[in-house]
Amino acid sequence: MRASQPRRPVVDLTEAEARLKLPLKWGVPDGVLPAWVAEMDYAVDPVVLGAVQQVLADGITGYPTFGWDAALAESYVAWSGRHFGWAPEPRAVHPVVDVTAGVRLAIDVFSGPGGVVFPTPGYNAQHGLARVTGRAEHLLEVPPSAERAEIDLDRLDRLFAGGAQTLLLTQPHNPWGRVFTRAELEGIRDVVLRHGARVVSDEIHAPLVLPGAEHVSYLAIEGTHDHAVAVVAASKAFNTAGLRCAQVVVPDRAGQLRLVDQPMSRNDSYSPLGMVAARAAYDHGDPWLASLIERLDEQRTLLAELLGTHLPEVRMRPLEATYLAWLDASAYGHADAAAVALQRGRVMVSAGESYAPGTSGHVRLNIATSRERLTEVVRRLARAWT
Amino acid sequence: MRASQPRRPVVDLTEAEARLKLPLKWGVPDGVLPAWVAEMDYAVDPVVLGAVQQVLADGITGYPTFGWDAALAESYVAWSGRHFGWAPEPRAVHPVVDVTAGVRLAIDVFSGPGGVVFPTPGYNAQHGLARVTGRAEHLLEVPPSAERAEIDLDRLDRLFAGGAQTLLLTQPHNPWGRVFTRAELEGIRDVVLRHGARVVSDEIHAPLVLPGAEHVSYLAIEGTHDHAVAVVAASKAFNTAGLRCAQVVVPDRAGQLRLVDQPMSRNDSYSPLGMVAARAAYDHGDPWLASLIERLDEQRTLLAELLGTHLPEVRMRPLEATYLAWLDASAYGHADAAAVALQRGRVMVSAGESYAPGTSGHVRLNIATSRERLTEVVRRLARAWT
Repeated sequence: MRASQPRRPVVDLTEAEARLKLPLKWGVPDGVLPAWVAEMDYAVDPVVLGAVQQVLADGITGYPTFGWDAALAESYVAWSGRHFGWAPEPRAVHPVVDVTAGVRLAIDVFSGPGGVVFPTPGYNAQHGLARVTGRAEHLLEVPPSAERAEIDLDRLDRLFAGGAQTLLLTQPHNPWGRVFTRAELEGIRDVVLRHGARVVSDEIHAPLVLPGAEHVSYLAIEGTHDHAVAVVAASKAFNTAGLRCAQVVVPDRAGQLRLVDQPMSRNDSYSPLGMVAARAAYDHGDPWLASLIERLDEQRTLLAELLGTHLPEVRMRPLEATYLAWLDASAYGHADAAAVALQRGRVMVSAGESYAPGTSGHVRLNIATSRERLTEVVRRLARAWT
Repeated sequence: MRASQPRRPVVDLTEAEARLKLPLKWGVPDGVLPAWVAEMDYAVDPVVLGAVQQVLADGITGYPTFGWDAALAESYVAWSGRHFGWAPEPRAVHPVVDVTAGVRLAIDVFSGPGGVVFPTPGYNAQHGLARVTGRAEHLLEVPPSAERAEIDLDRLDRLFAGGAQTLLLTQPHNPWGRVFTRAELEGIRDVVLRHGARVVSDEIHAPLVLPGAEHVSYLAIEGTHDHAVAVVAASKAFNTAGLRCAQVVVPDRAGQLRLVDQPMSRNDSYSPLGMVAARAAYDHGDPWLASLIERLDEQRTLLAELLGTHLPEVRMRPLEATYLAWLDASAYGHADAAAVALQRGRVMVSAGESYAPGTSGHVRLNIATSRERLTEVVRRLARAWT
């Protein structure tokens, strides 16, 4: 961000506004507070929204230009360099409709037929994705009791030795809220290289790394380019998931040619509105994103205070990125913590079980809301669970 | 359409407007007239555009509600009943990001592993789709010299006997511009039933049936519900392909349950903007569509006149639906009629070869433009080819 650009503030949505603007998240029964799906109760950055509105004011509702898009690619490259200190070449960056579709595309096009390793707890919408690509799904569990949520490299090694060929990495991780260190990523790379396996790195939460941590793209690790692609997007940080554009980053030339050579029906569903939203966010979103990160940092602090006061038995690992906290509430002894939260507390959180089998005492809590609402959410959870 | 609703006119785009609003179609070199990709040089129905603009004015950019959508389903059902005299039950109608993705979804979820029969000439973006689903592609050719473009039932029978398990039907047909009759569809059904095969019926052009013909959904044929799905959309008739919502119509209950039971990543990329555009078109688009059909009928007449005057050796079968004319220009003896049109005539048409091997003397011509531009296009083709 250039120093001369004035900050744009994060604007909290009232409940009426949130119900209008976030029909999925707020499509909950009356009286229920939603703290589940990963959307924020904040107004969209007006610069990004304005850019998309201009597309419709211009009457553009038809096909986008097909395939690699120079403007989108260059916007991402500049953003990546500015924010992460590393950037791919523009030729590496290709539009796709959304991140999960990008992961599917990457597996379909680049991976061998062997199974996909899916670390758990893992993003619920990507459970079953291996099956969609016609491959076996191998869960690589982080035990719920682990002190630090890490990829178990010995188990990863055994899964590859047993025939798995692809690791689906989510980093920053959802729902752990963790940022992998460079050393961890190098460790993963070494195991992958030993087996000639592939990595698909879903980095949609990279713009949401909080103070104290630093995002390192898997592609920024030496020796990864011929076995990995990243899938990136502005849509999570800018609350524009419905506009439908993410990007796959294919760093090696052979992979780029292979992607371009696919039948059109493999990847032609991205929207011109989503492409414009992505470019606006990458080019002009920094002064809003800086405010958002400050705000999420405050929400993180507030959550820690609230848990300390109201739910001291909840175990939570440090939240390094995302606005999604992975809470172990099993000390309170409920067979299904999310169901109890909804029934007794009138709070909708995401059930642990949807991220990993055997974690029904866990929930994923979305903290991207007003201070008052987050306070009320934790108070309700305390009334429900204790 | 209720008699009380006043017609809304079709508004021709100036060249400057078309270049702004249709970046793919008009992304041609200066001086070239585009008559290729299936988009119309007409302004989007203001009622549909206004509905989508309202979504952004409300600040809705996030996830749509997931899965079956009652409002969208009911809008389609009412539309289908009004326009085609037949309608599925609302439970049958499910959102999907676009028609080709819907075809892929239908094959992935419902078809056996055997090959896909793809009649040719066939929609270029769906060439290779069988491969994307991991299946063999069997071309079922209509010989370029055929008097009437029909599915050869004996060949279809042999392809099924040889192991194919799915027929991808495009009806109304693109690029033939044909509407299948009820008797033809019944003939296809009989062959399909004999082999226990499946049908995916891409009916995106159904709203564009011109006076003199009548659209019959494959699903309106008795005995098709347990082996067929249709894929439908408002986006072709209303020029809103970039907004990203089509619908799959799954008529039998078992199929509906199977679809709902799929991993989320199989089908969660449709956009809330596309859903609103589809509903606006289905609910309120009739007074604009009636004008469009009249206009396309006039364009069809104008094309016939222009061909008679300037290109009497071009052979064209009756255009019963769509705004896409399949022209056999092989009498003029060019090895690649589309390339000659571009190089000598400065007109971009779609090359026959992209619809069927061995048809490089054919082109697909998009007639949805101004009268003046269509006139100029045919004059240029005449100068190029003769």
